[in-house]
Amino acid sequence: MLFAPKRVLQPNALCVRHWTRRYLSASVPATEANDAGKRRARVVFSGIQPTGVPHLGNYLGALSNWVKLQNEASEEDKLIFSIVGWHAITLPQKAKELSASRWDMLATLLAIGIDPKRSIVFHQDDNQCHTELAWIFNCITPVGKLRRMTTWKSRLADSRNANSESEIDESMLNAGLLTYPVLQAADILAYRATHVPVGEDQVQHLELSRDIAQHFNRTFVPGKKRFFPPPVPEISTFMSLGVGREQGTELPFEAPSKRILSLRDPSSKMSKSSPDLQSRILLTDSPSQITSKLRSAVTDSIQGVTYDPVNRPGVSNLLTILGACMEKTPSDLAEEYANKSNAELKALVIDAVQELFKDPRTEFERLRDERAYLTEVAKDGAERAKAISQETIRNVRSFVGLY
Amino acid sequence: MLFAPKRVLQPNALCVRHWTRRYLSASVPATEANDAGKRRARVVFSGIQPTGVPHLGNYLGALSNWVKLQNEASEEDKLIFSIVGWHAITLPQKAKELSASRWDMLATLLAIGIDPKRSIVFHQDDNQCHTELAWIFNCITPVGKLRRMTTWKSRLADSRNANSESEIDESMLNAGLLTYPVLQAADILAYRATHVPVGEDQVQHLELSRDIAQHFNRTFVPGKKRFFPPPVPEISTFMSLGVGREQGTELPFEAPSKRILSLRDPSSKMSKSSPDLQSRILLTDSPSQITSKLRSAVTDSIQGVTYDPVNRPGVSNLLTILGACMEKTPSDLAEEYANKSNAELKALVIDAVQELFKDPRTEFERLRDERAYLTEVAKDGAERAKAISQETIRNVRSFVGLY
Repeated sequence: MLFAPKRVLQPNALCVRHWTRRYLSASVPATEANDAGKRRARVVFSGIQPTGVPHLGNYLGALSNWVKLQNEASEEDKLIFSIVGWHAITLPQKAKELSASRWDMLATLLAIGIDPKRSIVFHQDDNQCHTELAWIFNCITPVGKLRRMTTWKSRLADSRNANSESEIDESMLNAGLLTYPVLQAADILAYRATHVPVGEDQVQHLELSRDIAQHFNRTFVPGKKRFFPPPVPEISTFMSLGVGREQGTELPFEAPSKRILSLRDPSSKMSKSSPDLQSRILLTDSPSQITSKLRSAVTDSIQGVTYDPVNRPGVSNLLTILGACMEKTPSDLAEEYANKSNAELKALVIDAVQELFKDPRTEFERLRDERAYLTEVAKDGAERAKAISQETIRNVRSFVGLY
Repeated sequence: MLFAPKRVLQPNALCVRHWTRRYLSASVPATEANDAGKRRARVVFSGIQPTGVPHLGNYLGALSNWVKLQNEASEEDKLIFSIVGWHAITLPQKAKELSASRWDMLATLLAIGIDPKRSIVFHQDDNQCHTELAWIFNCITPVGKLRRMTTWKSRLADSRNANSESEIDESMLNAGLLTYPVLQAADILAYRATHVPVGEDQVQHLELSRDIAQHFNRTFVPGKKRFFPPPVPEISTFMSLGVGREQGTELPFEAPSKRILSLRDPSSKMSKSSPDLQSRILLTDSPSQITSKLRSAVTDSIQGVTYDPVNRPGVSNLLTILGACMEKTPSDLAEEYANKSNAELKALVIDAVQELFKDPRTEFERLRDERAYLTEVAKDGAERAKAISQETIRNVRSFVGLY
């Protein structure tokens, strides 16, 4: 298996965040969460938007964690990874680009080590159960609750280059952006998923999914039984990120790029949309491109290495990248390399990123041309996803009276 | 065929309403609308909510028009009638009752003369293409436009026994009620329907469907070609209702009951939810129940028959019922029966309604127990509906990039 974890990290006080603790104490039996040997089988669901060839930020933020999740899972755990095309169209897309991104994302997942035999990998838009369940959930979700979600406002503000969310006229939002978290709840609950890797930006959404699960159980399920388990955040993600709370974010439903910053302007995140190609490292970059981009990464003229995201964002970003590659915290690395120069630090990062992307890049380049194989994988994944979700839908229809 | 029209009515100035004219002049070639011999094939779509055993208001308001549409259609016309369970759950439902209503509505459609070989009759919730298309349309429909729709407010006000729409707190609305017209657009456009029988309450919704069709064509279809024909109202409905504008309403997506008033309180419409069983005539009522209910219908003590909905609502309601049964306007009937007593008028109405419901009642009672047959009809209808809508979805996915 590619990218098997180099060492198993111990839970870290920094990573067990208040809401993680809250969820765990509220809903997960101790045996389920804490005792790996005896825990009940998990159903892990996560989705990623088809954003095309991923960059280092996408990779370190979410994708590599999926591989870790897969490789650390017990045999009984179900792992379901979806490329969520229906979420992508909540913002304007060019049809040809979206289609290419859809297949590139599948090739990426396989290239980085998601095993389509072990995990279910599929295109969300190949399984209509998601939209059916989203409709049913729409009918029990108050509009007021959706309007309080902040993500859609910031996504819209981003897409319109607005300076703040208050500039956004809500009435111009499309209904897809508003009800996006309901589709997300359907994505998760269609598989009655128990665990969802989430980042800070998505906590509100996961809370909504939990609300909807509980509301549905209370309203429709005879005896108010727990048909939908309220999904909990997948904490192994935070542990394996190996970084502290402020840095440890990822967005399972959009290619995350918050944590890793632009190499050219470390005040903003590494982004697919920046016009400066030197600002990001793509999975498809050659070793010499990786070298050139990292060599020219903006740092500072302060002597020695310290981890100080506020005053030394460029150097700290390099430490974050290196830390993610080595599964160490950036602070630990800063101590270790305190006496190194920026150039020496960059050389270490270059080596690490080249090593990190070497096999996946080759595999990605090979796979993206194997459309017949990708189609086969997608089809098989969709069939396995449908088998689970159709059973869920069959039950849901019976609970609500649509039979 | 049951209920073939007794005579073909000529277009009536009263029925060609301003918005009908507007639509026709705006979008329907003259040959299509005016020259039955040469017109292009229509695709007629209509939906009705599963409300259980229909009453006279439901029957005269919408259902009988479906039969007329079917029986007057050209051979090339496609007729698609759907029982729209997903719309029903925008308001709270009891699961068992909803399920029974779902099958009773199918039995009703067949009992009144919808021929499942000629027309496609199916349960909306058997075809997930509707919810997929609704999601895609959600992504191009501004929330502001949906908030301006008035129907959801009145439906919610009704359901909460509020006195006016202003009492309703929008934030408590569920997202299903808000986005209901988008699902309706998907219902219609999944079949690229050209004609939709609509009532006054639904004009706003059909306008939204037209907007969505045009917006989609402009945004996604290469060359901005008319992939989705903007659907026009089906005017034969108004003609065949044989009544004037103020009375000629029907709601294809909810059992309409506005036109026919309560027999006990002619200030309100005939309604399934009234606690007074004498206020409505059900399709399942025996001839003696029909007689008893109509005999005790509230009228007034004025001599002679006149059509005056404001001052003589009870008598006018009887004339409306009789007019609908005989395909005459209530005013014409009032002239004809000017010298009759209320008792004589009631006797005429009793005869007409008994005759109207005689065959359908027998057929309904027979069919509602034939669950195997109904299941077969529903399955066949869903398959034919899917065959059309999957082709639409295939195109839509290719336009938006989900392929």
